Amino acid sequence: MEPASVPFGTVAVLGTGLMGGSVAGALKALPRPPRILGTSLNPADGEGAKARGWIDEISPSNADCVAQADLVVVAVPPGNVEAVWGEIAPRLSPETVVTDLSSVKGALFDSYRAGYADRLPLYTSSHPMAGSERTGVEAARSDLFRGRTVFLTPFSSEKGQTSRLASLWQALGARTTPLSPSDHDGIVAFISHLPHVLAYSLLHLVERMRDEKRFENFDYMEQKGGSFSDLLRIAKSSPSLWADIFSQNRSALLEAIDLYQGEIDTLRGAIASLSPGELSRLLSEWAEPALGVGPA
Amino acid sequence: MEPASVPFGTVAVLGTGLMGGSVAGALKALPRPPRILGTSLNPADGEGAKARGWIDEISPSNADCVAQADLVVVAVPPGNVEAVWGEIAPRLSPETVVTDLSSVKGALFDSYRAGYADRLPLYTSSHPMAGSERTGVEAARSDLFRGRTVFLTPFSSEKGQTSRLASLWQALGARTTPLSPSDHDGIVAFISHLPHVLAYSLLHLVERMRDEKRFENFDYMEQKGGSFSDLLRIAKSSPSLWADIFSQNRSALLEAIDLYQGEIDTLRGAIASLSPGELSRLLSEWAEPALGVGPA
Repeated sequence: MEPASVPFGTVAVLGTGLMGGSVAGALKALPRPPRILGTSLNPADGEGAKARGWIDEISPSNADCVAQADLVVVAVPPGNVEAVWGEIAPRLSPETVVTDLSSVKGALFDSYRAGYADRLPLYTSSHPMAGSERTGVEAARSDLFRGRTVFLTPFSSEKGQTSRLASLWQALGARTTPLSPSDHDGIVAFISHLPHVLAYSLLHLVERMRDEKRFENFDYMEQKGGSFSDLLRIAKSSPSLWADIFSQNRSALLEAIDLYQGEIDTLRGAIASLSPGELSRLLSEWAEPALGVGPA
Repeated sequence: MEPASVPFGTVAVLGTGLMGGSVAGALKALPRPPRILGTSLNPADGEGAKARGWIDEISPSNADCVAQADLVVVAVPPGNVEAVWGEIAPRLSPETVVTDLSSVKGALFDSYRAGYADRLPLYTSSHPMAGSERTGVEAARSDLFRGRTVFLTPFSSEKGQTSRLASLWQALGARTTPLSPSDHDGIVAFISHLPHVLAYSLLHLVERMRDEKRFENFDYMEQKGGSFSDLLRIAKSSPSLWADIFSQNRSALLEAIDLYQGEIDTLRGAIASLSPGELSRLLSEWAEPALGVGPA
């Protein structure tokens, strides 16, 4: 059973777009929801969250918002997190737990250790493996985290905040998995960042084939089937967000790309040389983890 | 407006699984449906199609099934099409239009010219860009072709059958695009076969990372987000079907893979060397065709 409440009386959500809005909405869907204060650089996201009843008040600034909070959720784009830390540190109570929702942890952890470990003493970084190719509070959903994994990466050596934060995510229907910054960044390079590299590369390739008029009557947007549509959806994600993510996780992602190119080489060789029966056995072996599970 | 009927009074569907069953179901959903006879190697697919009212009769053999048909739809796995041609040719009226639903056309066209051009004189091959990772009549849907493209590749020099077949697909809600065998195989290598290569390669890579215990607490099936789930769905497709498809379209697919690896190399270089702002501009350019359209 999921708990009906969370161990925080007042929550500050800094950034009430897709992710922050969904956190606020999921908390307010609990039987005993916390009080929630919010801020947003985009007025429509703040007003939309207020109109839905997902936040109780829009605060005039991030610093004001956190002053009375038991938990602060920094839900801004990854490149802005450190600037928000600078804004809130002077007003934060030392009892307040702080988290963010960033997709890359190594660089953020280095910044934390370099300048914020004393000023944000109860800090665990969160990464919910959930989202949307759309952005803003319009795309937010109170059930976004249900059945998903949230990675938890403790930044401060004090660890009590991690279990309290895990209780919160579990109350929202998520599973939690603790990870070090480097294991986190390695895992997401493979299961999240690499799929985006594949999608962008495919789209650019077919666009080139179209531009070069390589085929008669080629119009992939009209002609696509299910597999191309799946990859196209991935490529709809925000380019500026994904440029930040790729840049912040550069070394892990480059290594994942190199290993992936090796896998394609192997499969290419199999397609070039195996009989259909042998190739079928190889694909069955490679796809075995997928074939054993229900709808993705 | 779609026409309410099709220019064929009796249709033989050879193979009432996912694709053939969906053709029969879509035809029977028309205001003035044709009579439909069916066969199936798998008795459950034949009985399932009959129970749904999608076929009027189960024929004892493919040869019996086609004797009275105005249109024959060969909806068997790609490796079995030529064998079915051999079974039906002796019983076929020279007025009967024949099509198949195969994903690769070049090899089939060569077989047709070598041995069947005189015996199946009204032949146009179809390829609906629709399907499912599931198989059998249980996965069939009468709206499977709605809004999708069907590629039409005339095999016989007599062309009247192509426009009649186009009318049929349009009545089922599809768009039709004429293509030569080589343009067809080139296009599907990029927009359908290559995405499957990408999905199999990704799955094999993450499975290796898991086996090698490269990260703590790594369990990608539990931890996956939306982008990985999309690729996982692609890898759920039947390995034996896809081994046949990869083998039959080997040369076009190998060329598509080589060009794709060049795209990944280009993006890898950009990630390694560009600033986040420069990378964002490149991703925006590459994703522009995706960003301009609605949900995939």
